[in-house]
Amino acid sequence: MATASYLRMFTARAFEAMGVPANDAALIADVFVRAEERGIPSHGMLRLKDYYLLWKEKRVKADPYIRVVHESPSTAVIDADMAIGMIAAARSMQLAIEKAKACGTGWVATRNSNHFGIAGYYAMMALPHDMIGITLCNANPLVAPTFSVSRLLGTNPIAVAIPAGKYPAFVADFATTPIARGKLAIASKKGEKVPLGYVQDAFGFPSDDPDILKQGGAMLPLGGDRIHGSHKGYCLGALVDIFSSLLSGANFGPFVPPSIAYLPLPENQPGLGTGHFFGAMRIDAFRPAEEFKAMMDFWIETFKNAKPAEGQERVYIPGEIEREAEERTAREGITILPSVVNEVKEVASALGIDFNPD
Amino acid sequence: MATASYLRMFTARAFEAMGVPANDAALIADVFVRAEERGIPSHGMLRLKDYYLLWKEKRVKADPYIRVVHESPSTAVIDADMAIGMIAAARSMQLAIEKAKACGTGWVATRNSNHFGIAGYYAMMALPHDMIGITLCNANPLVAPTFSVSRLLGTNPIAVAIPAGKYPAFVADFATTPIARGKLAIASKKGEKVPLGYVQDAFGFPSDDPDILKQGGAMLPLGGDRIHGSHKGYCLGALVDIFSSLLSGANFGPFVPPSIAYLPLPENQPGLGTGHFFGAMRIDAFRPAEEFKAMMDFWIETFKNAKPAEGQERVYIPGEIEREAEERTAREGITILPSVVNEVKEVASALGIDFNPD
Repeated sequence: MATASYLRMFTARAFEAMGVPANDAALIADVFVRAEERGIPSHGMLRLKDYYLLWKEKRVKADPYIRVVHESPSTAVIDADMAIGMIAAARSMQLAIEKAKACGTGWVATRNSNHFGIAGYYAMMALPHDMIGITLCNANPLVAPTFSVSRLLGTNPIAVAIPAGKYPAFVADFATTPIARGKLAIASKKGEKVPLGYVQDAFGFPSDDPDILKQGGAMLPLGGDRIHGSHKGYCLGALVDIFSSLLSGANFGPFVPPSIAYLPLPENQPGLGTGHFFGAMRIDAFRPAEEFKAMMDFWIETFKNAKPAEGQERVYIPGEIEREAEERTAREGITILPSVVNEVKEVASALGIDFNPD
Repeated sequence: MATASYLRMFTARAFEAMGVPANDAALIADVFVRAEERGIPSHGMLRLKDYYLLWKEKRVKADPYIRVVHESPSTAVIDADMAIGMIAAARSMQLAIEKAKACGTGWVATRNSNHFGIAGYYAMMALPHDMIGITLCNANPLVAPTFSVSRLLGTNPIAVAIPAGKYPAFVADFATTPIARGKLAIASKKGEKVPLGYVQDAFGFPSDDPDILKQGGAMLPLGGDRIHGSHKGYCLGALVDIFSSLLSGANFGPFVPPSIAYLPLPENQPGLGTGHFFGAMRIDAFRPAEEFKAMMDFWIETFKNAKPAEGQERVYIPGEIEREAEERTAREGITILPSVVNEVKEVASALGIDFNPD
């Protein structure tokens, strides 16, 4: 059991030890620990070693020169100079928010970046400004388009945060596949099969084997198969890919660099690094924020009061499960798996610092 | 078999006979016939009678006063004064395009509108300007959120059109449910069952009955069930609902007015009419349009060259099937079902005009 404040302090120290300036290290640590707090450990401390190895292999820069390379009143393109993704993403979203203050909405496409943790973190940066926040990001290719066996798309998440009044904000944050990749790894470790609709084999036939990706299989887009609308999941993944990479000049689909250091970079990359896309929309560029937020409260109440299906207890508002996890971890602390504790200790030792969460 | 030009001429005359100004009638006709040309007859001549009845019941206005009620440099809200949806939508998208010319992107939320036909039509209006076009629209409630039996969301489509260079544009246009509602009607008419994952019964159990909506059932969000990611389809439908209605002041979810005249309007509506949301993004607000379009060509080639799954012939680019339908109907003409021909003849006769497609 670890406290969030200890994990923040430790993680910031770890990135400072890699040469990251103190402010940036604190931000990276905050994204890591927010993932743990929100019950998404697949994007928390588990990833520290991956980031450390990327840094060691010089695939990310600790102190990059992040700059705007193109802009209009409501848009910008940022070159992140191989930054650690969190720094690139937070800087980009901040610029989107500034643009929205000036002209109603702001849209920033970012290239030459890397894995940035939980997409929802940056979308939620818009909330205190009474803005809607949007984050899109492409990721290394694991997903085959409908009717294909070629792995051309990532799990390409979409996050949208919308402010409400008396209720907590609506925060949608989801991969454009039925499941996140981590679910396959968990099933594999447990020796379990997965439901049909998650993956296919190397020929494109349905598979329940969580390890099928190692044998040329692929993940499926949201919808699973054509009959259940996988062509719509393919469209969504494609849109996230195009917005994140082609507007910014980053790599698309099969050329997206892996966020794991032992996987080689794709050859003949047509762009620069990983791409992201951020949006901020000022509510009062459409109607008074108080009026909108009162209607969001009505929307949330209407959906909270929906009749549950037989055997179900309640209907969730997007973001509610993560917020309840935040309340629970604030009360009970954060549990880090023993295997992750050991990995983090290795990284700490290599960086000449200590990790003692208990 | 009808020619597109005859259908355009006839449909424009029909709306002129309802008192719609000639320019607007021609636009409405164009949206109707584009649906037929693109192989989406569920949004074509089949709908003429619905529009006629809405007009007769005074639920749409033939000559509305459409006005901007709020704006910022990159945004606007339009009150469509109960316009026929096509007029409201085209006017709104035109304004989004003008805003994008001035400040990079333009975003217009529209209230007090009605059913507007195919969402892709308006997204595609951005293409000749080297812009990305986006259309969202909510619709009458048929879909239950995950874990619920309450019908709170429509099939809420998303359309995004992205210009390419030597290849036709990428045009995604899809409902946020596994299928469009029309598929249920077709299965019902044929006396066929539907695959599990489309609908549930009044208790929330899986159903294969295409008529289950008449017995308190509901359509399911994209993903079908929780295990296959229906909570993500629910998020998508919710986002379309909120963007279309709460930013503009239109009705959300269960309060969206039915687009069929014999269904009563919901009581205690909190907003005005149906809502839409439009976006236009100038490509060169991010990078030179020629550079982007060359990369889109590379993207399209990469996906076209994806290896087909066993038993499949090819991988489709979003919009390709509709474009091929356009080529086919241009060559072969448009087939209107006899039952639709009869309905259109009834409407024509009531309006004092002729319908002779052959």
